[in-house]
Amino acid sequence: MKLYDCKIAPNPRRLRMFLAEKGISMQMIEVDILGGENLKAAYQAISPRGLLPTLVLDDGTVIDEVMAICRYFEELQPEPPLLGTDPRSCAMVVSRQRHMEIDGMIAVSEIVRNSSANFAGRGLPGVAAGVPAIAELVDRGTASLSRCLGFLETYLSGSPYVAGDRFSLADITARCTIDFASWANIGIPKTHVHTQRWYDGVSQRPSAAA
Amino acid sequence: MKLYDCKIAPNPRRLRMFLAEKGISMQMIEVDILGGENLKAAYQAISPRGLLPTLVLDDGTVIDEVMAICRYFEELQPEPPLLGTDPRSCAMVVSRQRHMEIDGMIAVSEIVRNSSANFAGRGLPGVAAGVPAIAELVDRGTASLSRCLGFLETYLSGSPYVAGDRFSLADITARCTIDFASWANIGIPKTHVHTQRWYDGVSQRPSAAA
Repeated sequence: MKLYDCKIAPNPRRLRMFLAEKGISMQMIEVDILGGENLKAAYQAISPRGLLPTLVLDDGTVIDEVMAICRYFEELQPEPPLLGTDPRSCAMVVSRQRHMEIDGMIAVSEIVRNSSANFAGRGLPGVAAGVPAIAELVDRGTASLSRCLGFLETYLSGSPYVAGDRFSLADITARCTIDFASWANIGIPKTHVHTQRWYDGVSQRPSAAA
Repeated sequence: MKLYDCKIAPNPRRLRMFLAEKGISMQMIEVDILGGENLKAAYQAISPRGLLPTLVLDDGTVIDEVMAICRYFEELQPEPPLLGTDPRSCAMVVSRQRHMEIDGMIAVSEIVRNSSANFAGRGLPGVAAGVPAIAELVDRGTASLSRCLGFLETYLSGSPYVAGDRFSLADITARCTIDFASWANIGIPKTHVHTQRWYDGVSQRPSAAA
């Protein structure tokens, strides 16, 4: 199989952290998102939606969504479980993961893509130039992220990890969202002591460097 | 357990179709999204993000994301499988489901929420009044949906269902996206013969009426 990666981007990082937690190491092919390599015909012939990471299986199957690639490796190698172990915990991981992704990571992406000259004309991931910035999305994204961080603090006030008692993919998405938010000069609010405790703890895991 | 539903909304419909395919029937509690019942304190005391559907387990666990609720029931009752059966098919269902959801259903939601008087000040799902409409999202959403329908036609030109040989959650999301798009007066393009063949086929399933 082939795995296409981008060192600076938050979605590929989610996958690298996931693989590090699983103890899976594999060669990766670097694609330069900032330089727009993912928008060019050569890459889109491999991954038509232009997204990273993308996994290409030996039979030619293309899996271009990070959550789908995580599911692939979870099914292939269930230990250690990062997507839950019973109906309730499986659902909680998916649920909290999506809270962090939809309200958090996508919100940061909207702030960055609609305010940074690096993404001029690239308002949507993977879509070649021609999607103009929408300035109002910066405020909307900032408000959504603020709400998301509020929920995160609530969750972490009641449990050690984002989806309960065990480290999971929800923690990975939350961690990557917080680090991605630094691109927009947004950090963990000073009053969010539970989030800071959790952040300091997950920073000690080897996967934090992935 | 308690399941909160909304008859007219596309996300609750995804869950109803999923449950119908599983042969699971249960009582549901109707919440009036158009009337803003999901934005009021009484509902948000149950489901803090104000989303539908929401499943509340007997131990009080709140699962407010439709994909997470589907995962819950898939783990509880694996047959018939709607989320894949081996690493490759599990990954393909997640991947294609997300294509249809992110590029399709969320795009339609942005068109509808940012152009309809019914959603004035409600630019994001579940967030009480105060998120103004952003007119440019109507064009961006329309372009995204058009790309999504193009990919859907490509997928269905190569396989009977959206994620391969078997009906799955990816078909449910695609079907609900197409029906939701009618709210924005967008239908299956006349040249998309594979999509129309598939649509006519899935319309024969009992779950289509859910």
